[in-house]
Amino acid sequence: MADGSEKNAVVSNKKVIFKDYVSGFPKESDMAVTVDENLTLKVAGDSKGILVKNLYLSCDPYMRLSMTNRSSEIFGTYTPGAPITGFGVGKVIDSRNPEFKEGDLVWGLTGWEEYSLLKSSEGLFKIHHTDIPLSYYIGILGMPGLTAYGGFYEVCAPKKGEYVLVSAASGAVGQLVGQFAKLMGCYVVGSAGTQDKVELLKNKFGFDDAFNYKEEPDLNAALKRYFPEGIDIYFENVGGKMLDAVILNMRVHGRIAVCGMISQYNRDQPEGVHNLMSIVYKRVRIEGFATVDYYPQYSKFLDFILPYIREGKVKYVEDIVEGLENGPAAIIGLFSGRNVGKQVVVIAPQ
Amino acid sequence: MADGSEKNAVVSNKKVIFKDYVSGFPKESDMAVTVDENLTLKVAGDSKGILVKNLYLSCDPYMRLSMTNRSSEIFGTYTPGAPITGFGVGKVIDSRNPEFKEGDLVWGLTGWEEYSLLKSSEGLFKIHHTDIPLSYYIGILGMPGLTAYGGFYEVCAPKKGEYVLVSAASGAVGQLVGQFAKLMGCYVVGSAGTQDKVELLKNKFGFDDAFNYKEEPDLNAALKRYFPEGIDIYFENVGGKMLDAVILNMRVHGRIAVCGMISQYNRDQPEGVHNLMSIVYKRVRIEGFATVDYYPQYSKFLDFILPYIREGKVKYVEDIVEGLENGPAAIIGLFSGRNVGKQVVVIAPQ
Repeated sequence: MADGSEKNAVVSNKKVIFKDYVSGFPKESDMAVTVDENLTLKVAGDSKGILVKNLYLSCDPYMRLSMTNRSSEIFGTYTPGAPITGFGVGKVIDSRNPEFKEGDLVWGLTGWEEYSLLKSSEGLFKIHHTDIPLSYYIGILGMPGLTAYGGFYEVCAPKKGEYVLVSAASGAVGQLVGQFAKLMGCYVVGSAGTQDKVELLKNKFGFDDAFNYKEEPDLNAALKRYFPEGIDIYFENVGGKMLDAVILNMRVHGRIAVCGMISQYNRDQPEGVHNLMSIVYKRVRIEGFATVDYYPQYSKFLDFILPYIREGKVKYVEDIVEGLENGPAAIIGLFSGRNVGKQVVVIAPQ
Repeated sequence: MADGSEKNAVVSNKKVIFKDYVSGFPKESDMAVTVDENLTLKVAGDSKGILVKNLYLSCDPYMRLSMTNRSSEIFGTYTPGAPITGFGVGKVIDSRNPEFKEGDLVWGLTGWEEYSLLKSSEGLFKIHHTDIPLSYYIGILGMPGLTAYGGFYEVCAPKKGEYVLVSAASGAVGQLVGQFAKLMGCYVVGSAGTQDKVELLKNKFGFDDAFNYKEEPDLNAALKRYFPEGIDIYFENVGGKMLDAVILNMRVHGRIAVCGMISQYNRDQPEGVHNLMSIVYKRVRIEGFATVDYYPQYSKFLDFILPYIREGKVKYVEDIVEGLENGPAAIIGLFSGRNVGKQVVVIAPQ
C-alpha cells in the first residue's frame, strides 16, 4: 500500500461512515469505520478538485446538529452512507485548482477519511505558519479560534473591567474566550463539568474563578455568588438551564453572545427558556453568531493571535486521540464532557 | 367643591387604590375607588413639590408588572393601600419647583387620582405644543411614541425593503411601529386579536397585511404564509408562543426588539421559549430595551413626529373611557385585548 506521497499511487482509504440520522444521544454505533480499496491519488482532469491527505480531524459540538435530519442555514446534514465531515488539517496530494498545489498544507472542511477529494476551495485556507503545531489549525488557529475572536471582540463588545462568564469554558472555544477576556482586563469566571477542568481554568488559563456546574443544584444562586455585581457578558456555549439562570443575573446593557447550546443538541425538544422578560428589565442583547461571518477577518485574526501563541501569553490545551477508528468515540465524548480541552483526532501526524 | 382652578381651595380627591399584590389575571376588585376629602391645593413651602390636576391617565401593559411583588430594574412595585401610578397628562396647580409654574401642562408619571403631588420633576415633561390633542402626550407624543421611535429606529436598525412583523400591532406602540416601518419603505405585517383590529391595521394604518393570531392554530405556518421570504425585523410586544414561532422564521441577521411580553404578564411561570438555537443558525439579535434610555432624545423625537401628525401622515387611534371610576376596568381590558388602540382614561378634559 502506498503512503500517498507518490502521485498516481493506488491506496486504500479508511473512512468513518455516517449510518443514519440520530435522535437523542449519539452512539459510536451510529458511525462505522470502513475501508475503500483502490483509491488512485489523482484528481480527474476535467474538475477543479483538490485531493488532500487528512492529517488532523476536529471534533466539534456542532457536528451533532448535522447528524439530525433537520437542515439549518449554516450546518448541513450528513448523508447516510457517506463519511461524516468536519474541519481538518490536510496536505495537498494533487490539485486541479490553480490556488492550491501538491505539498500545500491546508485547513477547512473535509471528510472523516484518510484522503478526501475536495470539489471546491471554498472555505479552504492555506497554512503558512508551520512553527506552530499543525493541529492548532483546527483549534486556536482555525474555526474555534476565529469563533472565540469574532464572538468575543465583535459580538460581546467587551470593555475593561467588565464581568464575563464563559460556559463550557475549558472547551475549544471557551478556553480562548476566557484568555481574551483577561487580555482585555475583564473579570472572568468559567463554568465546566469536572473539578479537573475547574482547576485547569484557574491555573492554566488564568480565569479569575471557575465552578463545576454539576455540583451547583441552584445555578441562579451560584451565579449570584460568583457575580455579586451581576454579569456584563455571557459567552454562551451550552443553553438551557444555564442560559435561564444567567439571564436573571445580567447587568443593565449586558450582552449574551450565543455561540452554541451543547446541552440541547441531544434533545428532540429543546428545553424552554423562561426568563426572557428580564432582557427588557436589563436591556440585554442576546445575539447569535456564526464563524463563517468572520472568515474575511481570518488574516487579521492570525496577526493578532500568532504573537500571543509564540510568546506563550495565550495557551491552548488539546485532547488528542490517535487513529480514525477512535474518532467516533472522540466525537461522542464531547457530549458527556469526556474531553479536556480541544478534541483532536490524529490521522497522520507530520 | 372647588374645581381646582383656585389656589388654596380645598377639594376632594378621588383615587384608584391598589389593594394587594396580584397573581394571575388582575380583576377590577384588585383596585378600589376611594375619595380623600379636604385636599388643600397648595404645595408645602419647604418642598420642591409640584401639584398637578390630572387630566388624562394612561393604561399601559407594563402596569401589570407593578402589581406583582417582584421588583425589577425599571418597573417599580405598587404599594398596597396607595394609588396606582402611571403616565398622565396634567396641569400644574401649584409648584415649588422653579422649572414648573401654575398653569403649565405636563406629562410624566403621576398617580391615579384627581390631584397628585409630584415630589420631583424627574421624568416630567412640559407640554409646549397644544394644537395636538393633549391625550396624545400619553400616547404618540409620550412614552408609547418614544418607545416605538427608539425601539424601531435604534434597536431594529431598519433598512428599506425589509420584512417587518409587529405584534399587538393595533396597540399604543404597535400602530406607530407599523407606520414607521412604512415610512422607511419596509413591508409590514401586524398581528392582533380581533378581525376589527386587523381591518384597522390594513385600512387605517396602512400595514401591508395583518392577521388575527387567535384564528391561527399554527403560528409557524401562519408566519410562513405572511413572510415566505422570512422576517428581518420583529417588534415584540407579546412573548411566549408568538416569539417561539417568529424565531423559526427570522432571516439571516434579523433583529428582534423586545418591548414587552404582554402574553406572559398574568402567568406565575412564564412560558418557555424553545427555539433559541435558531438565533445561531440565522445570526439573529434579540434585544430588550427600555424607553427611559431614549428620554434624552425626546425633543428630537418631537421634531420628527409633530410634522407627520399635523400633515396626517401618521395616525393615532385612541380608545377613550371617561372617569376615574372606569379606570380599573380599562386597565384590565388591556389583557383581554378589549381596547382598540391606545387606552386612555379621561379625568378632566380641557
